[in-house]
Formats: sequence, C-alpha cells, structure tokens
Amino acid sequence: MAAQPASEKHASGEHVEDVQIAGHIIDSLILPKILDLITTGGGTFRIKRITIGQARTDPSFALVEVSASSAEQLTEILGQIGDHGAVPTAQQDCQLVAVDIAGAFPEGFYSSTNQRSEVRIDGRWIEVADQEMDCGVMVDARHMRARCVPMTEAQPGALFVVGHAGVRVFPQERSAQRHEFEFMGSSVSTEKPKGAAIRQIAQELFRTRREGGQTLLVGGPAIVHTGSGEHLCRLLRGGYINQLFAGNALASHDIEQAMFGTSLGVHLERGDLAEAGHEHHLRAINRIRRIGGIKQAVKAGLLTSGIMYECVRNQIDFLLAGSIRDDGPLPEVITDVLEAQRQMRERIHGVTFCLMIATTLHSIAVGNLLPSWVKVVCVDINPSTVIKLNDRGSFQTVGLVTDVEPFLRSLAQELDALERTV
Amino acid sequence: MAAQPASEKHASGEHVEDVQIAGHIIDSLILPKILDLITTGGGTFRIKRITIGQARTDPSFALVEVSASSAEQLTEILGQIGDHGAVPTAQQDCQLVAVDIAGAFPEGFYSSTNQRSEVRIDGRWIEVADQEMDCGVMVDARHMRARCVPMTEAQPGALFVVGHAGVRVFPQERSAQRHEFEFMGSSVSTEKPKGAAIRQIAQELFRTRREGGQTLLVGGPAIVHTGSGEHLCRLLRGGYINQLFAGNALASHDIEQAMFGTSLGVHLERGDLAEAGHEHHLRAINRIRRIGGIKQAVKAGLLTSGIMYECVRNQIDFLLAGSIRDDGPLPEVITDVLEAQRQMRERIHGVTFCLMIATTLHSIAVGNLLPSWVKVVCVDINPSTVIKLNDRGSFQTVGLVTDVEPFLRSLAQELDALERTV
Amino acid sequence: MAAQPASEKHASGEHVEDVQIAGHIIDSLILPKILDLITTGGGTFRIKRITIGQARTDPSFALVEVSASSAEQLTEILGQIGDHGAVPTAQQDCQLVAVDIAGAFPEGFYSSTNQRSEVRIDGRWIEVADQEMDCGVMVDARHMRARCVPMTEAQPGALFVVGHAGVRVFPQERSAQRHEFEFMGSSVSTEKPKGAAIRQIAQELFRTRREGGQTLLVGGPAIVHTGSGEHLCRLLRGGYINQLFAGNALASHDIEQAMFGTSLGVHLERGDLAEAGHEHHLRAINRIRRIGGIKQAVKAGLLTSGIMYECVRNQIDFLLAGSIRDDGPLPEVITDVLEAQRQMRERIHGVTFCLMIATTLHSIAVGNLLPSWVKVVCVDINPSTVIKLNDRGSFQTVGLVTDVEPFLRSLAQELDALERTV
Amino acid sequence: MAAQPASEKHASGEHVEDVQIAGHIIDSLILPKILDLITTGGGTFRIKRITIGQARTDPSFALVEVSASSAEQLTEILGQIGDHGAVPTAQQDCQLVAVDIAGAFPEGFYSSTNQRSEVRIDGRWIEVADQEMDCGVMVDARHMRARCVPMTEAQPGALFVVGHAGVRVFPQERSAQRHEFEFMGSSVSTEKPKGAAIRQIAQELFRTRREGGQTLLVGGPAIVHTGSGEHLCRLLRGGYINQLFAGNALASHDIEQAMFGTSLGVHLERGDLAEAGHEHHLRAINRIRRIGGIKQAVKAGLLTSGIMYECVRNQIDFLLAGSIRDDGPLPEVITDVLEAQRQMRERIHGVTFCLMIATTLHSIAVGNLLPSWVKVVCVDINPSTVIKLNDRGSFQTVGLVTDVEPFLRSLAQELDALERTV
Repeated sequence: MAAQPASEKHASGEHVEDVQIAGHIIDSLILPKILDLITTGGGTFRIKRITIGQARTDPSFALVEVSASSAEQLTEILGQIGDHGAVPTAQQDCQLVAVDIAGAFPEGFYSSTNQRSEVRIDGRWIEVADQEMDCGVMVDARHMRARCVPMTEAQPGALFVVGHAGVRVFPQERSAQRHEFEFMGSSVSTEKPKGAAIRQIAQELFRTRREGGQTLLVGGPAIVHTGSGEHLCRLLRGGYINQLFAGNALASHDIEQAMFGTSLGVHLERGDLAEAGHEHHLRAINRIRRIGGIKQAVKAGLLTSGIMYECVRNQIDFLLAGSIRDDGPLPEVITDVLEAQRQMRERIHGVTFCLMIATTLHSIAVGNLLPSWVKVVCVDINPSTVIKLNDRGSFQTVGLVTDVEPFLRSLAQELDALERTV
Repeated sequence: MAAQPASEKHASGEHVEDVQIAGHIIDSLILPKILDLITTGGGTFRIKRITIGQARTDPSFALVEVSASSAEQLTEILGQIGDHGAVPTAQQDCQLVAVDIAGAFPEGFYSSTNQRSEVRIDGRWIEVADQEMDCGVMVDARHMRARCVPMTEAQPGALFVVGHAGVRVFPQERSAQRHEFEFMGSSVSTEKPKGAAIRQIAQELFRTRREGGQTLLVGGPAIVHTGSGEHLCRLLRGGYINQLFAGNALASHDIEQAMFGTSLGVHLERGDLAEAGHEHHLRAINRIRRIGGIKQAVKAGLLTSGIMYECVRNQIDFLLAGSIRDDGPLPEVITDVLEAQRQMRERIHGVTFCLMIATTLHSIAVGNLLPSWVKVVCVDINPSTVIKLNDRGSFQTVGLVTDVEPFLRSLAQELDALERTV
Repeated sequence: MAAQPASEKHASGEHVEDVQIAGHIIDSLILPKILDLITTGGGTFRIKRITIGQARTDPSFALVEVSASSAEQLTEILGQIGDHGAVPTAQQDCQLVAVDIAGAFPEGFYSSTNQRSEVRIDGRWIEVADQEMDCGVMVDARHMRARCVPMTEAQPGALFVVGHAGVRVFPQERSAQRHEFEFMGSSVSTEKPKGAAIRQIAQELFRTRREGGQTLLVGGPAIVHTGSGEHLCRLLRGGYINQLFAGNALASHDIEQAMFGTSLGVHLERGDLAEAGHEHHLRAINRIRRIGGIKQAVKAGLLTSGIMYECVRNQIDFLLAGSIRDDGPLPEVITDVLEAQRQMRERIHGVTFCLMIATTLHSIAVGNLLPSWVKVVCVDINPSTVIKLNDRGSFQTVGLVTDVEPFLRSLAQELDALERTV
Repeated sequence: MAAQPASEKHASGEHVEDVQIAGHIIDSLILPKILDLITTGGGTFRIKRITIGQARTDPSFALVEVSASSAEQLTEILGQIGDHGAVPTAQQDCQLVAVDIAGAFPEGFYSSTNQRSEVRIDGRWIEVADQEMDCGVMVDARHMRARCVPMTEAQPGALFVVGHAGVRVFPQERSAQRHEFEFMGSSVSTEKPKGAAIRQIAQELFRTRREGGQTLLVGGPAIVHTGSGEHLCRLLRGGYINQLFAGNALASHDIEQAMFGTSLGVHLERGDLAEAGHEHHLRAINRIRRIGGIKQAVKAGLLTSGIMYECVRNQIDFLLAGSIRDDGPLPEVITDVLEAQRQMRERIHGVTFCLMIATTLHSIAVGNLLPSWVKVVCVDINPSTVIKLNDRGSFQTVGLVTDVEPFLRSLAQELDALERTV
C-alpha cells in the first residue's frame, strides 16, 4: 500500500492508533462489528472510553485503541473499520495521488463504500458526492469538492484519495430503517408473513408518490412470463413508478404478449404450455426493429398495450440494458455495458425507493450503483438472489421471497385500497 | 422370483412373449415408454401389428413381441411393462400364494401401482379395490374379490398375487387430464403464468363443491406462518374443503395465532421478526391439552378463530398425523404413524380432488395413498417438493411453484368472483 | 400469566426492574439483542452502568433499567431478555406450581431454552439438567435438583417453575464457537469456499474420535439415492460415527441397494433412470420383515453390505424413527413418534458433535432436543433446510449448502489424509 | 404471414395438408409430440399410413393428414410441427424475400431451430450452415448455399426464407444421446446418483481430448468463490479444455485470488467470512488495467497462478463477455454484447462438447448459439438454471444439480484415474 499510516510505534513493537466511533453504536451492532474486524484482521483492541446512550435514540461514543504487529496490518485494519465509521482521532487530511494511466486508479487508491462519506481537505471535512460503492474518490481541492468516480472514467492528472487517512464513513443505522420495513431480518426465509410485507411496500409506493420521491422499478422477464404485466401496468398508470430499468427480455416478451398474446410462446390467458408460437418474441422484436423503435411503434399504433406501451404513453423513462443472451435486440437496448452503466448512474440521482423484481443480473447491477440510504426491496421466488445481493454489500436491501404474479396482484390491490381511503 | 413366466423358449435360446397394448398408446406416450422399458431392461422387441387411431380420441392397438435372454429377465421386463398396461396375450389366471408370516407378503409378491388394475381369477377379470401403490393384492377367490392391502396388514393364510401373470393395468391417459389443468407440463418452472393456474384451481374447487365431490386439503404450517390462515378459513367456511389432513405444527401455530396473534412468535399483523412470544405455540398447546382437545376448546370458548376453529364449527373432518418434530403434541394428534396411515387410508375413499399446500412430508404420505385418478394439485414455493412427488410416482400431480400466501389470497378472490357470477 | 413480577411501580405509572448482563456482551452481540428485545416488546431502557472488557477475552458487565407500562408487559419483556442472559438484580427464588393435569404444565409455566440455565431454590442457584428447548423445568426441592421435562411427561403433583423469576440463562457466546468452525456466518450462501469447510468437519470428526467424544449422524435417504452410501460406510468402519438416527427410508433404500443394486429403482452404478426395479425397496423391506429384523438379516447372511450392515457389524447404535410416508416399515422402526422422541432424548446424552445430512424432518427433530453447546453441522443442497433450523432456534447449527455425494466423498478423503499424517 | 400455404381447401371448408415423418418417430417421442402440437394448435389429424420399425434401431415412417379451419391456422401448425421434422409431402421450394431494412428480417421470416435443417432450392435440398436457433436463413441461390444469420446482421438485398414451405428439420433423436449420458432424464432432481454422472463426464472429457474434439467450458465466478479454481486449473493444464467463455467476475475474482488469496474478500484457505479485503477484487482489476491486460500481467510476472494464468500459459483461448454488473472491467472484457455474441458465434465452430458451470447468464447465452448436436452438460447447485435452459429450447442439455467445488474436485480425480489406466 502506498499510503503510510500515521500510527505510532510502541516500545513493545506494536503499531497503535486510537479511533473513535459515534452514533447508535451498540443498538445498531456497529461496535461489535468493528471489534470483530480488528480481531479477525489480526489486531487487538482496548476500549479506552465508552459512553452509552441512555435510551434508544441517544447517541453513544467509544474510543478504541487498535494495535497491530506491523504498519501494513494496522493500515489494513484501519481501512476495514473505517468503512464502518471508525475514525482515527489523530485527524489528518486525505492523501491525494494523480492518475497516471487513463482508466485506472493510482495504486493504493481508497475504495469507496455505498455509505455517506466525507474526506478531509485542508482541515475541513467535505461530503463526497455521487456516493457509490467500489469507486475511487476524486478530489477537486480548489473548489473543495469530492465525488465518487468509477475506474473507467479516471482521467490522467485527476487527483484521487489513496489510503484511508482523512476519510470518514457514516454507516447507515439499522434502527433507522426498521421503522420503514419491519419485515426485514432473516429476509431469505419463505416462511414469513407476506400480507404485512406487501402492505408496507404499497404504503411506501403511496408515500413516495405523495411526497414527490422517485421510485425506480428494476424488473425481469418473469414479470411477463408469469402473467403479471397487467398488474405492473396498473402501477405505471397510477403514477407509482417513475423509471423502469430492465433488459431486452422484459421488453420483448411484453411486446410479444401485446402482439401475440403469448410470452415465450406460452398463452398467458389459457396458461397451457403448448409450444405454439415459440418464435413469437422474435417476430415481435423484428417488427419493432422494422419500425425503428418502441416509441415509434406506439405512435404508429402497432403497439397498443403492455408495460412498454404504458411507459411511452405515461412518459415514464425506461432504460433497457443489453446482455449477451439477448435476441434481436430491440432498438432501444444499450448494447455497450459501460454505456449502460453510465446512463443508469446518471438516472438514479433522485431515486428514493427502488423495487427490484425477479431479476438477479439487473438487481445486482443497480444495487452496485445505489447509495446505502436509498430504500431497496428485492422480490424474488428464489432465495439465492436476495442472498447474493446481501453478499455483495447491498445491506440496505430488504428481501422478500415470494412469487411475482400474486405479489404484484396483491400490491395493486393494496394500492387500490389506499387510494379509496384517501 | 417364485412366479414362472408362461413364455416359450425359442430355438434361438431367447425367451419370448407377446403382449398387447390398447388405448391412446401413441398420443399418451405409453407405447414409447413400454418400448423403452423393454430395451433398458435388456430385452428386445418386435412390433407385430399396430393400428393407430385415426383421430385423437380413437383408440389404438399394438401387438409386441418381447424377447429376453433368460426367463428371469423376461419376467422382470413383463412386470415393468405390465405396470404401463402391456398385457400378455397368452392369458392366464393370477397366481396366489398364502401369507406365511404375519405382516409380510410371500416372496415374489405382486407390487401394486396406483393405476386402475384387474386380476384374472378363474378366467374372469376382477377389478382391484382400494387401489394404492406399493401394496400387495389380496384375493378372495370365493367371492371373486380383490383389493390392495399394505404389508403390515397381511394376515397369515390370506392369499396374495405373486408375479405379474394374470394382472392387467390401465394407465391413466395423459390427454384425459389435460382438459382439467392445462397449466401442467414442465410443472416445476417458476416462470409460468400463475393467474390462469389459480383460476383453474378455483374452478375445480367450485365444480367439486357443486357436483358433490370431495376435496381434501393437505397443508403445512407455512400456511399459518405466512399469514394465509384467514384465506384458508374463507375456503372452509365456503364449503370448498371437505377434509383437512395436517400435522401438529399447522394446528398448534394456528391456535397460537388465534390466542396470541403470533405464529412461531412472529406477529402476523405487523410482520416484524421480533422474537416476542417464541414460546407462544407451547403455551397454546398446553392450554388445549389442559382442556382436553381442540373441540373442547371451541366449545368452551377458549378457541374462537382460525383454521381449526372453522373446522370444528363447520364440521369439517380433520386428521392430525404426528411426526418426530412435534412439540406437545395436541391431544388430537395421532402419534403412531401406522395408525395415522390407516386412518388416512380410510378417509380418502370418496376424495375426488386433493390440494396439497406447503408440506413435503404430508404431501408425499398422501400421494402414496391416492389412486391415480384423483386429481392432485401440489403448491409449494420450493420446486423440490413437486419434483420429489413426481419422482416417487405420483404422476397425476400437477405442481405449482408459487408462494402460499398470495396463492391462497388469489384463490379466495377467484372463488368470490365465481360465486358472484352464479 | 400466573407469575407476578417483583418490579416496583414508579410514581410515573411505569413498571420498572433492573437487570444485569455479564460476559462477552458486546463482542457476542448479546447486549444489542437485549436492548432490541426491550424496545420491540414495547418497553424502554436506561443503561445505568456499563463496563466493557478491555480486550476480546475480558468479560463485560451492564446494568440496565427496564421500564414498561404494565406489569404484564414487564413480565413478558423480562421473560424474553432472560432467555438471552439478562437477570433481574433483585434476586428471587423461582416460583413453583404443582402439575394438576397429567401431560400438561401449569398455566404460566417457564418455557426452557437450549442454553445452559440455572434456577434459584432457597437462595441457591442450581444447574438445570437435561437442558432442552421448549420444555418445562421440574424441580425437586428436597434434593435441590432441577431438570427439563417435556409436556407429555408432566406427572400430577410434580413441581414446575412458573414465570421467569429465579431463572437465569447463560447464552452460548458466539466468539467461543468461531474457533471451531470459521466457515459459519451467512451460512446459507452457496457461494462460499467448500474445501475449507469440509476439512474442518473432518478435523472435528477426527478430534472427536481421538478425544473420546460422541458423534451422532442424522441422515436422510438422499445419502443412498445419490450413491453416497459407500462413503458413509467408510466413516462407520473408521469409528467416526457413534450413533445413527434416521428413518425407514434411509434404511430400506440402503438395504434395497445392498440386495438389488438400486435405490428407488435407480441403478447407482450406471446412474441410468430406467424405472427397472421401482418395487425393489418394497421387496427389500418384505424380506427383512420375513426374517424378523436388520440384525437377524445380517446374522443370517441375507444382508452383507451397506450402511445398516456396517452399523450392525461395528456395533454402532442406530435408531429408526417412523413417519407417515413410510412403506413397510422395517421391524426396527419406532412407529410411535413420542416413543421415538423419548428414545432419541435418552441417547443424545453424551453426544458432543452432530452431523446432519440431507434430512429436514430428522434434523429439526434432533435440533429440538440438543442443548446449545453441542456442535451441529447441517449439510443440505437445499438452503431452506438450514434456514428452517435457524428459524426454529437451533442457532448453534453451522449450515453447509452443498451436495451430499461429493461432500461425503471429500470428507472420507480428508479423513484418509488425516489418518496418514498421524 | 406473407407465405401462402400450399394446402388445398376441402369441400368441407377445412384446409388440409399431408405431412410425412421419418426416423425413430415412436421411440424418440417425436410422433406423439407432433400429434400434440396439431391438436393444441387447433387442428385435427388423421394418420393415413404408419410403418413402425421392427426393432429399436429400425426407422419408422408416418403419413399424417393435418386439417385446420383456416389457411393461417394451417400455416401456423405446419410451422410448429415442421420444427419437429414433419415435412409436407407436396414438396415445394422455399420462398425467398429480400431484406428491405438493415438489421431486420422480412415479415413472415422463417425462424430457425437449433436442429439440423435443409432448405429446398430449385428442387434440391441444401443443408443450412451455422445452424443456430432464433435466426433467419439466408440463401445464396447462385452458389446453392444457405446459412443461419442473426437479425442484426441482415443486410439489405440479402434473400431470406419466409414461411415454412421448403424447409425440413431433422430432430435430434433422444435415443442417440442416451448412450452418452445415461444420467439424464428428470435431470433437475437433486436426489440422483452423482458418482456415475461425474464419471461419465470425465470419460467424455477424456474421449474428446483423445479424439481431437473441442471442449468449451462456460464458467461463473462461483468456481472461484467456492475454492474450485485449482481443480479447474488441473483440467486446463491437462489439456481437457480448449476454450473458456466467462465474464469479468470469474476472471477478476480469479486474479484477486492469485494476488490476495481471497475471493470476494473471503480467504479461501481458511474459509472464514471476515470481510477483510472486500476491496481486493477492485485492486486486482486496477493492477491489470495499469499493466494493460491479463497476458501482459502474466508476461510481467504480476500474475503467477490461477485460471487466467493457466489459460495464458497453456495457450487456451478465453473470451470474457461484459455485463452491466461488472466492476472495472478487465481490459480483455468485450463490453459490447453484440460484439461478444459475434465473437462467441465465431469461436464455437468446432466445439463438440460444452461444460457449463455455475452461471445462468453465460449458459443461456451459449446455449442459444450451439446447434443441437453439440453435447452440453450444465452443472449448477440451483435447479432453476437447468430448468431455464430447457425452457428456452436447449433440449440437448443434460443438467446436473450439484455443488461446484466437490463436483470439480471429483471430476479432476476421475481424470487422474483415467490417465493412470491408460
């Protein structure tokens, strides 16, 4: 690592540094987590001072001495626990190194989390903009600005933070979120009450619409295959969804359904599994390509129902990101994945609630981009999608293991009920 | 094997026998299946004559010569293909051997399928009663009667069929069932239209009630944990369920829910996962044990809502079968599994439709007992339950991989709609 | 609840009680858990004093004031947090009430956890014997003895603890267990390193054998279906398994495999799925029933290989518990589930390590009986089994989501390697 | 549809056409499938003549009259059954229409299957090259050539087949494949013998290498996360893999593992789940970007072990296709998905065996491109991946539901054993 820790070396040969942690450090499990990371990182700790909030809402404070046997180990530990809000008391400015190779960070770069963060420049703490995990933090010292930038966009000469000194992270507090979605917890179990969860999601959609928030829906083709398209259309018409991120499959099976009444060749009305029309989705894509795009198809009266039709008619932004399994694809599909990431990044500013339904690929992709304070609910019949999202660090995600069709049907009904009560 | 095949031995050293197959043998995949079994059993076949029905509803006929290198192999093959409806043309009476040891069959016993079967006694074909898979066929030659009897109930002196000679099986035809539930097929996929499937199940429940059939519901505790109890109560009150088979867990969590508002300690209303009341189900069981039983608790006003309450109030038969994971258990639970099987066997006579929800153990247990012509729908969020049922020979089972709460909610709504249209 | 809390009522109308918690209360997440339970139970807390251990191994201490709006609520909360080690400072003896109805506890009975517990009798703390979750605690005051007793065994006149006063629980500390199985954590993920986990399990088996511990294997029939029987036989012959708990299915498919080379009719050698021999398991059971039992079959030379054979030959105790899906069953199967529970309870004394493989039913049943300090590893290809075990309170269980055949194969190889190094 | 069927219109108002089917039409389930499609498509059939092969290897022949109520319906049905080998007896040349819009087919275009196909030009049947599902068939009449072309590559003026007339399909016969992999069947069950399956895959790898075939491995990052990288390296060094298709994740976690000993921050050796090094994969990617690529990193001695290292050292072609969830990505990653498809298409020529491991996205993408005669084995712990592949038409895929680490470990051991026997 390029960055040198500011730690003292004790007579014992130990490298030592004091860190402080503030906030709901006990109630929100942050302190145990930090002590754990110190130990598993090979270090030891000594709690020098601790003040516990007298009630759940009172903040607590802890001063912890971290020891390690080498400077490198100490740096590594400080980096780990820094991501959870432990800040060295010996305050320093962040260290900056200029990019030398386009599209790559300097060695030893600070790797961002999705938590709210600040960097210290000239003795002042500056909030990091565009917070996103797995980025570098680019600093414009003259204008006292800092923001997260992905690796591919690092331009030669730009200054990036290296090491963990001068960076502090404010971890999302678990308790804060509890009030929103009480059904979280061991979220992957299928044996949990579902009615309450669906009601709470409906309330969140309703509140977001009323309060002018932005709801992003990330969806997979199973929405269409399971016959849930009409329920989603009801949400789109109701103004509950402000943006749709999906892939070629959702859009082309939706259009197949609008044109042929089938999805992957299965008649949704009858539910039979006859192969009749397995090629329908290809014909649907071909027709859209012939007319130039989805919007043109709606305008021309070629596409008169379905999810994509409702997006166009209700001026709901949609983004279709490409993947290597795409047939066609539809003209609107962004086939370059970096360009797709760039556009998703741009459009998630302002998103306050994200509902992910039945897609592992797009859910993880969007989960990677969202800051930790955006509420995320991930719905999938397969527990492994929810487990994967959490494994990859999207801890704010509340998972609901359930089936998409009855889920969306019930959600639409709950929204109907909410609308009637107003 | 004790039973000697009636096959001739050719000059070639081959053992040969002619079998005939009738019915929708091509459309229903029976002929290919039989040819396959002959080959994988090590034999060879020659199709001597074949008449194919000119339309889907016309029956077909095939005469097939089966050859094997030994008499034992031929017997084995004839047994296999006999289970699929191939009957030797050289008609013989079935062979009978008396039980010599109580609770065991004679060696070489004929092992029954769940398909409609007949045995030949004194030149006459007699229908086998109480058709059930994995039983022996006991014959009362004097009264010309035959019925399936489980191993444990074999009494010394009783006559049982050995070998496959003189037994013929009439396999369920796939096409016949297709009209009922069109959503079957690769039933384990989660990506199928669900609305159509739920609508068809509602229609089946409705038709069964109207036509005086009997619907058996086999359910697991996830019905209660997921907060679906009220939906099931609506079905019970509506007269759609004639019997309930379940275990101690469903009943005790249902009673826990009625008494404490929780299931496994989780508040269903709020959906939070606080552990508050993890011991509630034990207190619920204890109270029922103190008063003597579920019926007594309803009578005494101790139990005033829930699935078990509705069963008692609406005089719906319930059977609670014990398992080694039971707490308590409730007084009504049959703790001896053979006694439980015996009672289930008795009560399934007359069942015409069986809905299995969220229980692997009870679904497989009941699937083992039902004849192949009883329509079965198995609903589980876990595809492996459905796969297991099919692996074990309950081929008539239509699987639906979906989540129990929204499934039951939608089912109740479809029934509401059906009732309004009448 | 019958038991009255010893709490004072404040002028404010609040009901208040002080509790103390000792041990690794921060590092092991106990304190946050307790504070959480107080809040979700509707109470509030004030931390009066806290001393944090200066290092990971130093114990900590906290004195917390709990307030609630009613005496009932306070009792409920004290019960909840008592299960996690919070003991009221105002020490009282436990309250005892005599059983009035056979097979039921007094109303308000104390419901046990699987953690080490003590009850206070005449001012002295007595350890509770036979620790098991979901039992009552029966006290013999004259001999100063206490032990866990299941509901069905409550005899009239026997004294049981009611309420939470005078009971203290010593929760298992997470950190203690970490040293044994480092692969635990979000144990249900399939995307974790498996080699390390298998190696650690092998080491545990090896150590248990060397140190004279007792290893209990709880297994399902998939061990045989997947062709893993031979690997388990190697463990049995090697002296790594001291007891086997299973059901009729494992034993009868194992014997089917020994007699016919098939499991559920599938040839394990060739792996083909021909239905040849679907009735084999029934013939195997019948033969064992004819000869009187598994031991008799081994003695008579009828059974000469397989899991059950190795158990008999190596004098490894086995217990076969019945279930309603059993065919036959084999003579050794205990068909009454309460009797099966009683015998399992008796035999788990002395078990120090429990390996559960591919069975949900038996794993949960045994998990219910084991005290929290017995190490448990649960191996299943289906994440839901592991999730269910944890949902039901068997927190000491380390789950490994993997496939049974290659798991057992690798385990046997690791044991080979360990034996060579000694 | 642009293409007019050559059917006669009967006096009855029915539209009728005779089709013939040849091959193992009964044994391979083709005839029942075709009759089924006619009926579910709304038509009726009459079997005019049928000759059944006298033995399993003898071909059969059937002449079937198909009737429908409209010309459109008949065309639709003929298209469906044509994909399964039913060819109209009234032979016609295929109809050709020129592309009028770049990147789109003419309306009514023939949509290809992945089965061997021929088109009739000037009375002669020509084999279609580059057989691939969901493409159009471009015809060069002058050179009597035809080949599959994806939609995006349709150039104005090029001639494409429309309708189904003049196209015939030779469906893969099920029986042919049975000899290779006997473990197929209800392939999604987890309860099947695994040892036999793994042995057969090892034999296939061994035979392919010996006979100069080409094995393509399609892999996901779980290979690295589960600690199976070393087993795959052994296969790469042994010459069993000729090409690797993967994504950025597999390559970057492999390189993370080589550089830091972790995968997604988990130490593979110890298997603990400490978060230490969650950022490691980002640092690994950054280093490779700084040096210009994987090959450069190997050359410079920066990358000295792992899957990618073995590919470079053993000159095994690798293709890394991008996805929207990629971090970095590595310089070799093809970020445009159409370009990635194009390169995959190019490189699969010559592939005779394809092993797909632990990746849904890449497996489906490659499954879409492969002709039906390439043997495919798909290994995943999640049954849904295998189900999805089959749902999407990759019927030749043999699924194995097992865990990747012990699977690859056992596979490597089987190969060791095979090498020793030679």
